Amino acid sequence: MSATIIDGKSFAEGLRGRIATAVEAMKANGVHPGLAVVLVGNDPASEVYVGSKARQTVEVGMRSFEHRLPADVSQQELEALVARLNADPEVDGILVQLPLPAGLDAEPVIAAIHPDKDVDGLTHANAGRLANGAVGLVPCTPLGSMMLIRSVLPDLSGKEAVVVGRSNLVGKPIAQLLLAANATVTVAHSRTRDLPEVCRRADVLVAAVGRPEMIRGDYIKPGAVVIDVGINRIPAPERGEGKTRLVGDVAFQEAKEIAGAITPVPGGVGPMTIACLLANTLTAASLRRGLTPPTF
Amino acid sequence: MSATIIDGKSFAEGLRGRIATAVEAMKANGVHPGLAVVLVGNDPASEVYVGSKARQTVEVGMRSFEHRLPADVSQQELEALVARLNADPEVDGILVQLPLPAGLDAEPVIAAIHPDKDVDGLTHANAGRLANGAVGLVPCTPLGSMMLIRSVLPDLSGKEAVVVGRSNLVGKPIAQLLLAANATVTVAHSRTRDLPEVCRRADVLVAAVGRPEMIRGDYIKPGAVVIDVGINRIPAPERGEGKTRLVGDVAFQEAKEIAGAITPVPGGVGPMTIACLLANTLTAASLRRGLTPPTF
Repeated sequence: MSATIIDGKSFAEGLRGRIATAVEAMKANGVHPGLAVVLVGNDPASEVYVGSKARQTVEVGMRSFEHRLPADVSQQELEALVARLNADPEVDGILVQLPLPAGLDAEPVIAAIHPDKDVDGLTHANAGRLANGAVGLVPCTPLGSMMLIRSVLPDLSGKEAVVVGRSNLVGKPIAQLLLAANATVTVAHSRTRDLPEVCRRADVLVAAVGRPEMIRGDYIKPGAVVIDVGINRIPAPERGEGKTRLVGDVAFQEAKEIAGAITPVPGGVGPMTIACLLANTLTAASLRRGLTPPTF
Repeated sequence: MSATIIDGKSFAEGLRGRIATAVEAMKANGVHPGLAVVLVGNDPASEVYVGSKARQTVEVGMRSFEHRLPADVSQQELEALVARLNADPEVDGILVQLPLPAGLDAEPVIAAIHPDKDVDGLTHANAGRLANGAVGLVPCTPLGSMMLIRSVLPDLSGKEAVVVGRSNLVGKPIAQLLLAANATVTVAHSRTRDLPEVCRRADVLVAAVGRPEMIRGDYIKPGAVVIDVGINRIPAPERGEGKTRLVGDVAFQEAKEIAGAITPVPGGVGPMTIACLLANTLTAASLRRGLTPPTF
């Protein structure tokens, strides 16, 4: 039997619709949420990504503030911009597009973002709130992954969840979210001794390693929910010389014959990320004003 | 074959000796580390604990500042004291003895402690630093547990570690420490479906649930390292009417026949906690001055 394909694109569209409704309601109460995006330099991929974010921000009815700085901006000027955005009452969320150009240090820039405006959930303060079960801002990709998991498996209590990968941005926060949802959570990684065996325990398997198709079909427990966070570009000579295609960390064709539900790449977790950024901006706008954030 | 009994009392004594040596070296450089302990009310158990802390602080050559407030102190006064200690250059570590008397809210008091003086590692900032792999202050019991684990198993890479319990104070931080040490880490808890089976995977099993002797011998993989964080007082009628004794979360008599190494209760993790508080005070004193903290 073939797995349910979890349609992240469609889910993200629905989510943006619910966000738009919530923004309307906030505006009716005199609050107009705004997201500031900072782009340093002109990396083409970052340009495209920042453009998508700005467009979707406006589409859901929020304000978008774009700040572009030259690649040779000083560390001090960049941090000064963040300080101004922290102080700006019209700015609810601040996102500094990463990676920064060579010569700039991302860590102090992230540390300079006020935790309550940190819509990427990258500050230590937000990682700590998540770890301690306090209200805060959760990184977008883990947040979106959890929404997709819950769309096919609403009750995670007592389920075995295995997260492959332990990055600060994805693996570790998603493990915290799964734990908060009462799953029994294992974090596996490059040093794990018998990865296939560990993966086969999983009722919910999250792959976030950044290695193309490393999770094979026989790593998967029959009927498991498989969330593929990886986005890897690999050569696709079958499409013509020099052509490439995107694959995930999971060998999709094998896995979909065994899993109960699985996210494709592209079209799975990817589209959720910007939608969750918008959700986080709304959460930030609510928390800053002592309002209960909408749930999606 | 009977397990190696991990002698936490003896390890803590050695640790205090190494701390005393490091304090000597700091004092020779003009730095005299100091720990401030705040006790509100006069709960007898807290009195004893605060007394032990003060005594051990002085024994390793550090300064001890004791602040006693009446049980009817206002929230505002208590937080104002914390603010003064934050600003006091002679104070490197601040510990507010918990639990606070009824009517006082611990959360804002903890949040008021400067993260760099938070020697209990309770603030969101320190939980986030730990989650993100940044330098910070780690809660004392997990820190001490890790030292005992490493004393019998220096290389955790690829080992299966299972933590039973997911408290902010013990379970979650110890899972982070084990993960940082390259173990494959599972966090189990009250909702875990087949706890005995999950525990039997563990090369390193950490019990931190607060339920007397719930981890039985047959939960343990032969040769495993078992760390018992629980301290539970149970009736001991065999010692006379109304008598009690301390037991851990692990059924010690059964477990020691199967484990490779095990901590007893009392005399295992318990004695490590204050010693790690002193280690954290030294770490805080170093970090505040931009010095590399000594490793123990």
